[in-house]
Amino acid sequence: MLTSALREMEKGNSIFEREIRKFQAPVCRIFLDDQGRIAPVVFTSTGQVLSAGNSAAARQEFSRIANAGGSRLLQARGVNPAPPSGKKVAVLFSGGPAAGGHNVIAGLKTALGKKNTLLGVRGGPAGLLAGSLFKITDKDIKRILNTGGFDFLGSDRTKIKTPEQFAQVKKVCVRYKLDALVIIGGDDSNTNAALLAEYLFAGVKKDGSGIQVIGVPKTIDGDLQAGRLLPISFGFDTATKIYAELVGNILQDTPSSRKYWHFIKLMGRAASHVALEVALQTRPAVTLISEEIAEKKIPLHKIVKSIADTVVRRYRKGLRYGVVIIPEGLIEFIPDITSLLKTLNELTAKYAPELNGLALDKRPEFAARKLSGSKALLFRSLPGYIQEMLLLDRDSHGNLQVSQVPTERLLIDMVAAHLKKNVPDVQFSPNSHFFGYEGRCGAPSLFDAAFTFNLGLTAGSLVLANHTGYMAAFTDLQKGGRVLAIPLTGLLNIERRHGREEMVIAKALVKTNSRAFKFLASRRRDWAGSDLFTSPGPRQLWGPAARQTPISVALNQGYANLNFEL
Amino acid sequence: MLTSALREMEKGNSIFEREIRKFQAPVCRIFLDDQGRIAPVVFTSTGQVLSAGNSAAARQEFSRIANAGGSRLLQARGVNPAPPSGKKVAVLFSGGPAAGGHNVIAGLKTALGKKNTLLGVRGGPAGLLAGSLFKITDKDIKRILNTGGFDFLGSDRTKIKTPEQFAQVKKVCVRYKLDALVIIGGDDSNTNAALLAEYLFAGVKKDGSGIQVIGVPKTIDGDLQAGRLLPISFGFDTATKIYAELVGNILQDTPSSRKYWHFIKLMGRAASHVALEVALQTRPAVTLISEEIAEKKIPLHKIVKSIADTVVRRYRKGLRYGVVIIPEGLIEFIPDITSLLKTLNELTAKYAPELNGLALDKRPEFAARKLSGSKALLFRSLPGYIQEMLLLDRDSHGNLQVSQVPTERLLIDMVAAHLKKNVPDVQFSPNSHFFGYEGRCGAPSLFDAAFTFNLGLTAGSLVLANHTGYMAAFTDLQKGGRVLAIPLTGLLNIERRHGREEMVIAKALVKTNSRAFKFLASRRRDWAGSDLFTSPGPRQLWGPAARQTPISVALNQGYANLNFEL
Repeated sequence: MLTSALREMEKGNSIFEREIRKFQAPVCRIFLDDQGRIAPVVFTSTGQVLSAGNSAAARQEFSRIANAGGSRLLQARGVNPAPPSGKKVAVLFSGGPAAGGHNVIAGLKTALGKKNTLLGVRGGPAGLLAGSLFKITDKDIKRILNTGGFDFLGSDRTKIKTPEQFAQVKKVCVRYKLDALVIIGGDDSNTNAALLAEYLFAGVKKDGSGIQVIGVPKTIDGDLQAGRLLPISFGFDTATKIYAELVGNILQDTPSSRKYWHFIKLMGRAASHVALEVALQTRPAVTLISEEIAEKKIPLHKIVKSIADTVVRRYRKGLRYGVVIIPEGLIEFIPDITSLLKTLNELTAKYAPELNGLALDKRPEFAARKLSGSKALLFRSLPGYIQEMLLLDRDSHGNLQVSQVPTERLLIDMVAAHLKKNVPDVQFSPNSHFFGYEGRCGAPSLFDAAFTFNLGLTAGSLVLANHTGYMAAFTDLQKGGRVLAIPLTGLLNIERRHGREEMVIAKALVKTNSRAFKFLASRRRDWAGSDLFTSPGPRQLWGPAARQTPISVALNQGYANLNFEL
Repeated sequence: MLTSALREMEKGNSIFEREIRKFQAPVCRIFLDDQGRIAPVVFTSTGQVLSAGNSAAARQEFSRIANAGGSRLLQARGVNPAPPSGKKVAVLFSGGPAAGGHNVIAGLKTALGKKNTLLGVRGGPAGLLAGSLFKITDKDIKRILNTGGFDFLGSDRTKIKTPEQFAQVKKVCVRYKLDALVIIGGDDSNTNAALLAEYLFAGVKKDGSGIQVIGVPKTIDGDLQAGRLLPISFGFDTATKIYAELVGNILQDTPSSRKYWHFIKLMGRAASHVALEVALQTRPAVTLISEEIAEKKIPLHKIVKSIADTVVRRYRKGLRYGVVIIPEGLIEFIPDITSLLKTLNELTAKYAPELNGLALDKRPEFAARKLSGSKALLFRSLPGYIQEMLLLDRDSHGNLQVSQVPTERLLIDMVAAHLKKNVPDVQFSPNSHFFGYEGRCGAPSLFDAAFTFNLGLTAGSLVLANHTGYMAAFTDLQKGGRVLAIPLTGLLNIERRHGREEMVIAKALVKTNSRAFKFLASRRRDWAGSDLFTSPGPRQLWGPAARQTPISVALNQGYANLNFEL
């Protein structure tokens, strides 16, 4: 009966979930042995030394892993003729979820094979510190294959930084007799992986040897990239395909109902990669790219005026609707806003007792009087709820949680005010949206399913080939794929964070001289003036529309088309 | 080059859109002639007289169309042996967009064939009044086939009600020498179709004959249904599959990041069909069904307490997260709220000058003092911004625009306050979402693509077979499909609207004795207590997961499984 069939579908057994579990993601040919079975590979140095600004300092701070690999890029040479057995490897997720994480584990387990053991760490770095590990079985893998989310292990955002934490990790490694740790995470987590690789390099086990640490590049934000070596991090494609479908649906709605402007904020923290990719997929009237705004020093009132001008231009052509795409991190890139925020940080610290003594809605006037010139003008031009927000409590570093600012509402209100003042005859019916959590845990696109399974095979191969301090990488997806290992020391850089210098992997921002940005810039005036949008539709796992590389990746990598060939 | 390929993709030519245009939606066998070509059908009376409460009154008010068809259900008998030629038919969209509208037009055009003419009305009923019609070509059909949105014609919400408007429609019909009108719309638009069918029944053309009017049932809300004769309106399946994917992704996110409660409001106006279907697809911790709340007279504080209890129950089991699904129309179904609203409507009318003389944030205290007993208590228990909202200006009928009330925020704030007061140790990190516009214009699911193409064939066949005052219907999709025509008079009912009695098609609400609701009710306690959710994934147009009937439809229709067979 239908009701019992529906009962059986509970707990991750929808029709879709059942079918995708039967699905073998495409694998790079180098992972196939003579008999066509998937097998781990060995690596050879390409001789290419990677450096990222301050590599000398990095090689000094990470001297043990740097000396071992010479910060040289590795590339897969062929199937491992005699993979070791008896290795114990633990894998963990770190940071926000991204589609394909489960396939990394599936690839890892496949590479390790039956003669080695894979343990899962529950609940991310905090779970590692707590020693919450368990053995991952083949049955587990069958259940999680091609599914979205990080729920199999769970994740968290704990940073392993203090000497006590490092010592604790070592203790857990010894307790579980681990030989290697695989850390699936973003830029910060891979920085952590480098620190752990260095710390655990030697002297951990009884025979004096160490614990290998391998990173796997994850983040939907797309800000962990390494040029031709790593075109993108995993999860970006699925997230942007989900957002692009929604934006495309809304775009299709605009000339259907003919009355709304939709302001859509997209997740992606600082970098605008997500906004750029979704814009390339959908061709909306307006796309804001934070990096361009910072570079060209465009003040807030000009952004508002530019959107309003587009609203008017379209309105006069009978197009009383449109879509504006806004990157999540925008507000921190608008020059006059960042300068105002800095002053407000000082001001709220200086006048904390006075401000706290005032009702919320009285604080803006108090603050406005303490500001002068253009800052006072800018502050007074903001809607009241934004003024109040900007005067709220700071975090422990004295900074405002700007991610909380509803930029999409701010822009709507300011554009509406601008239109009312300057072109009162123009009707403007706005709607706001924020797409974020919807895109992190969707079932992976075919691109991400393949990308992550191959990354997992790469990470497993690196472990079996006794490497440490590397990040698994996979590139050239348009021509069969190329398996690489990037030395983490080659990505590290000195940055000022929280008031002190730290060795970190720099976030990759959108470059205004990149092919992807330049293509947007070359087309956006036409997209603003008429309806040239596309609706990319729901991502397909089967059929003729399933194989699609992200457009920004294909452009920046110089691919000839959007098809990937594995 | 990639950039030129990307240029060619602009204006609705994404890879997905190109591929779906090549796609022939499955067609009911009755539409196939001897040689397997798609052809219009003829109809025969089933003898079944339809009635909806007040059919005698309806048959009187609509005597001409009622007498012609006797309010009898028609069913397709076989291919039309000699379809007429030279007919001129106009088609229009009315109301909010829904996926599959373009396929209705494609089916209609296919049924009419090359010997009859199909005109499109630009911009809905307003465009009909303005006489904005154009000829639809085969090339148009190729372009719109299987695509989402109503953008090919556009739509609007004008109601044709006044004698002047009826006369104007007649004029446009004469001017364009129309033989028939096909109106694609919801309950109100099909009521309009009945009125027009009656008005245009005879005496329009020189020979004294009339203009046929055929309705096609559209609405994502799912509130236009007719039992076994019409399981659902088109657009519902696509919208709920889009929302269900998003809700499923968010559910998958909850045990991955392990910290958030997501309160998700879903579009669907009054009825909770959308919320119910999405809940059946995804199995979240909490689902509110407006109709149940009204029927059981559950007051707001009990709804809040019940959600809070689930939050606590899960928290104690280590599940510090969950999802709550909220139907858009909820607030109008909560008994103490509707009673409060009624009093506030009177109060705001009586004290308009006093209230308008007060600042927004001073009005609640003024109003609260005018309320007594439980109403004063309830009003004071609401968050300040909701109190202010409930005192805002009324529409022309003296009613509040309740759809503007952010129910998802209201519930979050009240649950948070309840938890803080009663179980302060329970951490509660809520997020709110509203999914609406994202689901109206997506590319149709395979179900909707097929459903709508067959509805279009049905509407075209009705026109060619000289029927009027019918709504095209299509049912039994699990066993090849059955083509029906429902007499609009059989759906009409007397309802009090805007202070006077009107003949309307009643909105179908969720029945608490329906199989779909009862299945939810039987499972929800388990879904609340542990993670049994499913992630139904993106709708597929190809492959093994493509054929899926809405779960609520399959349950209510008594289908044996979710597969549809056409």
